[in-house]
Amino acid sequence: MRVLGVDPGLTRCGVGVVDGAPGRPLAMVACGVVRTPAESEVAQRLLQIEQGLELWFDQYRPELVAVERVFAQHNVRTVMGTAQASAVAMLCATRRGIPVTLHTPSEVKAAVTGNGRADKAQVGAMVTRLLRLDAPPKPADAADALALAICHIWRGAATDRIAAAVARTSGPGARPKEYRR
Amino acid sequence: MRVLGVDPGLTRCGVGVVDGAPGRPLAMVACGVVRTPAESEVAQRLLQIEQGLELWFDQYRPELVAVERVFAQHNVRTVMGTAQASAVAMLCATRRGIPVTLHTPSEVKAAVTGNGRADKAQVGAMVTRLLRLDAPPKPADAADALALAICHIWRGAATDRIAAAVARTSGPGARPKEYRR
Repeated sequence: MRVLGVDPGLTRCGVGVVDGAPGRPLAMVACGVVRTPAESEVAQRLLQIEQGLELWFDQYRPELVAVERVFAQHNVRTVMGTAQASAVAMLCATRRGIPVTLHTPSEVKAAVTGNGRADKAQVGAMVTRLLRLDAPPKPADAADALALAICHIWRGAATDRIAAAVARTSGPGARPKEYRR
Repeated sequence: MRVLGVDPGLTRCGVGVVDGAPGRPLAMVACGVVRTPAESEVAQRLLQIEQGLELWFDQYRPELVAVERVFAQHNVRTVMGTAQASAVAMLCATRRGIPVTLHTPSEVKAAVTGNGRADKAQVGAMVTRLLRLDAPPKPADAADALALAICHIWRGAATDRIAAAVARTSGPGARPKEYRR
């Protein structure tokens, strides 16, 4: 499956595309960031993020999209922009009928490093190793987006197995697709 | 000028359209809400808000859009959805090349009641009076959206006058349009 991960942000929106399946080697397809100028109005920046993400969707045609779940934390000013950028990413995917899953930062860290409190360097190192890259992807937002995609490939697979098991025990009335979201 | 006001929210996104100019009577064109079911996924709800708002833009063709500026306040869970719904509204407008202005709740209250800390009932009463309606618009989100549009007609006019004055004194190099945003 091909997953496009989005690490949302107004200034740098990280994007990473990974091909993979559980138990098989992962392959990086592409990664990068959509940037918008801090001096622009928020409405314009959201439009630029939409236009930038649309190009990624057009070019790489992901089957699934993973977006970081945003929490209101320390920096309230930043978190608003992050929430709004994540809304744009969700909208781009849903408009195309692509299922979107949200993962928390600790879910992503735990998936790629085994430790939900791992730091950025550790996440970058594991993304580099898992994708067999020569160096950690730069900027960190791109590496985080790849980590999200990897997390989704692995976690999504687990929930798919659970969904299949539920479907087997509960018969044709079950709707395993819902477990993916 | 015709202004479409948006009081953003995931469950009820208020929309109000007002025609007017400073010093002249205001006229309500339409008001209502775009609703999305609380049990749906956020990504789906954002898509439904986009589809709902697009119908309003298609039908009423506003020249300007006013959106409530979202702050992270008490209820962190709600504010994320509000920020995301406001992102969708900004995106719908900007995609059509319609200028978007954000107004804080206290700017709106001060504009329509003279008091930045007025309560919902007072705002509803003044919206009813200013638009010469028989009763306060329901639900409150629709009334708030109308108040946003009224606020923009009045405040926007003031900033337009300032922009025009600046343009007169600073010559052809000035770009008065920027002051509107």
